Formats: sequence, structure tokens, C-alpha cells
Amino acid sequence: MAPILDFWFEFASTYSYPAAMRIAESARARGVTLRWRPFLLGPIFKAQGWDTSPFNLYPAKGRYMWRDLERICAGLGLPFMQPDVFPQNALVAARVALVALERDWGEDFCRAIYRAEFGEGRDIGKPETVAAVLTALGQDAQAVLHEAQSDATKARLRAQTEEAQRLGVFGAPSFTTADGELFWGNDRLEAAIAWAKR
Amino acid sequence: MAPILDFWFEFASTYSYPAAMRIAESARARGVTLRWRPFLLGPIFKAQGWDTSPFNLYPAKGRYMWRDLERICAGLGLPFMQPDVFPQNALVAARVALVALERDWGEDFCRAIYRAEFGEGRDIGKPETVAAVLTALGQDAQAVLHEAQSDATKARLRAQTEEAQRLGVFGAPSFTTADGELFWGNDRLEAAIAWAKR
Repeated sequence: MAPILDFWFEFASTYSYPAAMRIAESARARGVTLRWRPFLLGPIFKAQGWDTSPFNLYPAKGRYMWRDLERICAGLGLPFMQPDVFPQNALVAARVALVALERDWGEDFCRAIYRAEFGEGRDIGKPETVAAVLTALGQDAQAVLHEAQSDATKARLRAQTEEAQRLGVFGAPSFTTADGELFWGNDRLEAAIAWAKR
Repeated sequence: MAPILDFWFEFASTYSYPAAMRIAESARARGVTLRWRPFLLGPIFKAQGWDTSPFNLYPAKGRYMWRDLERICAGLGLPFMQPDVFPQNALVAARVALVALERDWGEDFCRAIYRAEFGEGRDIGKPETVAAVLTALGQDAQAVLHEAQSDATKARLRAQTEEAQRLGVFGAPSFTTADGELFWGNDRLEAAIAWAKR
């Protein structure tokens, strides 16, 4: 059986962008099976006493993060454009991701949302942006959005967020292994994959 | 002329430990000249509204950090022991470092302090620990401590901390290049050295 790594991501999270764009190839190259686990940082940040991103609460850290992300994207050959709105409301996109990841275009959807947000500076908090991404992937946007806004999908996203919190996740991206190790940050991706392979 | 990289470190900072232990060799291998720049995080954290380490303010992040540091040290073959006191009062050690870095045993002193603190779990906030480290290095501990506690050294440490803040430093370890780039974290050491070489 291939080792499994859980990939916890949030569409509002900046460093989740480079992680999401490169994780599939990194995991495949090492023979690790990925589970893509969208969740919401909002409730987790709230539990830490924050009502917005720490990058907004601490401006020096925020300025650094945008420059650092720009350098990282340049190094990976990824498009980068700082969006006007930050953090963005990732609720609808996360619900759609839950639905999409049960289909074979789920990972493509996640990458397309990140590219729209941090590669093109679009606001993925607007349902019309999510719809446009779905349409570009050849999907029936209204049907998918309808399913994404069902009570069942809403409950699944809440449960997944609670599971992340139970596992000790406090930021995104995070990676968890079957034996309970937690890794946080795009820069821990390689270490997480190596640990899953042990 | 060899490219220069400024290495900003704080003796209370956990991730500065692996950075300090490996930076000299990494920089030498790439032909980069290092400037070791001790500073104090206290005034910088205070400006962000914190009266202690964010690893204490946010327990989930703190628990993660200690486990992450343990894994990193294991990977580098560095001894690791979580000290009882965290964060430690790095004031005297930082002043001594300023004095020591003008001698040829300065880097050895910095590494020995980090090893005592995070490799052996000792309290480097106690002047007797700093004195023991100095003695083990073959130095006259009382003479060095006397010089370290002079008004001139105190003023230099304050000035260096203010310089760090002006450069946008908000955490440790940090690295700054001659062309104004800032890199934060042990995991950015390679990127910082590569940038300095550009």
C-alpha cells in the first residue's frame, strides 16, 4: 500500500498557492498518495484570538510575506499577482472543492482557483469567479454550485475543519501523516513527503 | 569582492539554533561573507503588541514548533533538548556576542551558547551559564563580561536592534542582503545565500 499524506489547504492562504501547484508532482515522484483536504482557517484563527489574517494584523510580517511569495513564485515559474482583497472569502470555493474532489477534475479545480487568486489577482470570494473557473474546466457551474451549497456539503466542510483543528493544524498549508506527524508551510512539503515514506 | 550576507540572530530564538550551527559552512561553500548580527527580539515583539514569544501566546503553534525543531535537529545531527525556561533572557549573551565577534572566537561563542541552550537545555539567561561557556572557550569570563556590560556595548546592541527593525526584521533568524532583500527563517538560509550571490 502506498503511504498516504493529507494535504490541508485554505483558498485564502497565500503559501498554499505554491504548495498546491507543486504537491501532486512531488508526491507522485516519491510514490506517496495524496488526500486533498480543504478546510477553513477562520474558526481556527478565531480560536487564537484573531479576526483576520496575521499578515494583516502584523504589517511587517505581511509586507515580508508578499515579497517572499513573489520570490518563491518566480523561482517555481508560477505567475504571481497580489490581489486587492486579502484575505479572500474562501467559503464557496472550499465547498465546491469538496464536491469537485469526488470527481476526477477536483485537483484541477483547486489549482485553477489558486491561479485565479494569486496568479491573476482575481477575487475568488465572488461566486461568479468560482463559476467562471468551473465553466473554464468544462463543468456545469450552476449545478456544481447548487450541490456545493447543500446542507450536506456545508456540514462536511465544518467537520473537516474540526478534524484539522483536532490534528493540531493552526495554519495552512499543513500536511499530516498516518502516524500523527504535522508539518506546516510550503517549505515543509518535502519533509512531509519524506516522513510519509518512512 | 565577496558578496555579503547579514545574519540577524537572537539567542532566545529557537530556529536561530539550527541556522547558527550550519550558516558558516553554507556561506563558505558558496563564497559568501557573513556578518553575524546579534539583536534583541523583545523591542520588536513589543512593537507588534506581544509581551512574550508568539510560541507561548499561541500554544498550538508552540507545540508544533518544539516538535518541528526536534525533527530539524535530528535531520542535521544536532543535539536537542527543550529547555525548561522559554523564552530565555538573551540580554547578557547578546552583549557578550558583540564583544566576542570582534575577536576570532566570536562565532564559536555564538554556537556554544545555542548548543548550551537548545542542545543541553541550560538557561543561558543566567550570567553564570554565559561565564561557563566563556571559560570553556579558554576566555577570561569576568573580563569579557565586564566589557560586555559597558555603556558602549549596551548602546551598540540597542543601535543594532534598531537597525534590524529599520530593515524590516520582525523575527529571527533573518538574513539581509546588500540590495535590501529580507529572508526570514532557518528554512530561507539557502535562498538568502543564493540571493547574495546573484
